[in-house]
Amino acid sequence: LSLTFCALEEIPEVRPGDSLGTMLVEASPHPLSSEHVVVVCHKVVSKAEGRLRRLDSVSPGEQALELARAYEKDPRMVEVVLSETQTLLRQQRGVLICETVHGLVCANAGVDASNTGSGEEVVLLPSDPDASARRLRHEMCMAGASPPGPGVIVSDSFGRPWRVGQTDVAIGAAGIRVLDDWRGRRDSFGRELQATQIASADSIAAASDLARRKDGRRPAVCVSGAEHLVTMANGPGAKALQRARDEDLFR
Amino acid sequence: LSLTFCALEEIPEVRPGDSLGTMLVEASPHPLSSEHVVVVCHKVVSKAEGRLRRLDSVSPGEQALELARAYEKDPRMVEVVLSETQTLLRQQRGVLICETVHGLVCANAGVDASNTGSGEEVVLLPSDPDASARRLRHEMCMAGASPPGPGVIVSDSFGRPWRVGQTDVAIGAAGIRVLDDWRGRRDSFGRELQATQIASADSIAAASDLARRKDGRRPAVCVSGAEHLVTMANGPGAKALQRARDEDLFR
Repeated sequence: LSLTFCALEEIPEVRPGDSLGTMLVEASPHPLSSEHVVVVCHKVVSKAEGRLRRLDSVSPGEQALELARAYEKDPRMVEVVLSETQTLLRQQRGVLICETVHGLVCANAGVDASNTGSGEEVVLLPSDPDASARRLRHEMCMAGASPPGPGVIVSDSFGRPWRVGQTDVAIGAAGIRVLDDWRGRRDSFGRELQATQIASADSIAAASDLARRKDGRRPAVCVSGAEHLVTMANGPGAKALQRARDEDLFR
Repeated sequence: LSLTFCALEEIPEVRPGDSLGTMLVEASPHPLSSEHVVVVCHKVVSKAEGRLRRLDSVSPGEQALELARAYEKDPRMVEVVLSETQTLLRQQRGVLICETVHGLVCANAGVDASNTGSGEEVVLLPSDPDASARRLRHEMCMAGASPPGPGVIVSDSFGRPWRVGQTDVAIGAAGIRVLDDWRGRRDSFGRELQATQIASADSIAAASDLARRKDGRRPAVCVSGAEHLVTMANGPGAKALQRARDEDLFR
């Protein structure tokens, strides 16, 4: 039982329209296949998909102006955040905790200003991160990965209630069992394990972040040893990791 | 940049008073040193420390009886959970979300009935998981690991708000930087990274869980490639990962 996380090589600056899957295949020192899981930082995915917004093109509305005033933020940035937000869960001390249009819960609806090249340009989350993961898997196969291709995870760094610091989670996925269900299996004493559903894709995303550098030049990690989680079909994706609102005790 | 997670060999059933650190050194196929981080499932730590409770010795109080009635639970189990609880944050659909006496937020105050050998015996969290991690590090050095010894993480599986499934987190730590602080460093465009504190110990704990089997026979994982996080001093431990109550937007 052994898992290895290895950062792929540096890739060139990603521009809208680039085939990121091809770039990842080229950045891998070995052929990619269903023996691997490739974890990609969402930011390069968003860039390839043109999910960028120039702040000078944004006209903040009333709510954005008000929030920006209260928390000393750029009202244009707040406007972009609100445009990606379904429900604003908390607003305190300059932090906006949002349920995004995708159903993800995170700070600033995942809108990010770092690693963009210009302070005037911000990066949004992919509009459908599971579709992004499927597309990446397809592009990788087109570029030479053995079909059905590696499992693919699109990741982002999220804060957590109760705990300090961020961990990466899977916001998009294709070809990987995002939940590993141990319910019904037995422990070493033969007793049935209870309530054990492991968020395997989140765990893989978290550790991948440790194998990357934060400066953005090596945005992808290849995981070996997790082939038991890779599936032929693309599957339900990371959506399956989102807890339904009415099953959530903290919303 | 590469991280490897490798399960240590099977260890014998752990009993109160056992030197778990010695057992881990013996279960490692290679000498352990500060080039490694050893992640240990809390359950064996608790067993070595005698943190077990026989349910037939427990007399449930009024609150336990009431909660047990409402949620069809064993009142003795609920009594043990309450004895480990500082604040009951949520009680719904049979789930008790507790802030434990340690300040951890988790279901059932971490009290667990699986992998104990008897349904009448439950396992509590170690009373001071950071002290447990320090003790393990010391025991490993006594048993032959090169001083100052590997970084040590004591882990448990926690649920999360908003997301389905559990991930392992670091409830105790020694000799490891549990937070990797990237604030002030610069991205690939030279702009300062904001709000980037990586919960490295939680990320390592999460992936370690994927390298273990859930049946409890191989409760420890050796991580290579994370030596930059290992410290000479035991440090503040996993306590540093607990968000202060008044800085928490969801308590």
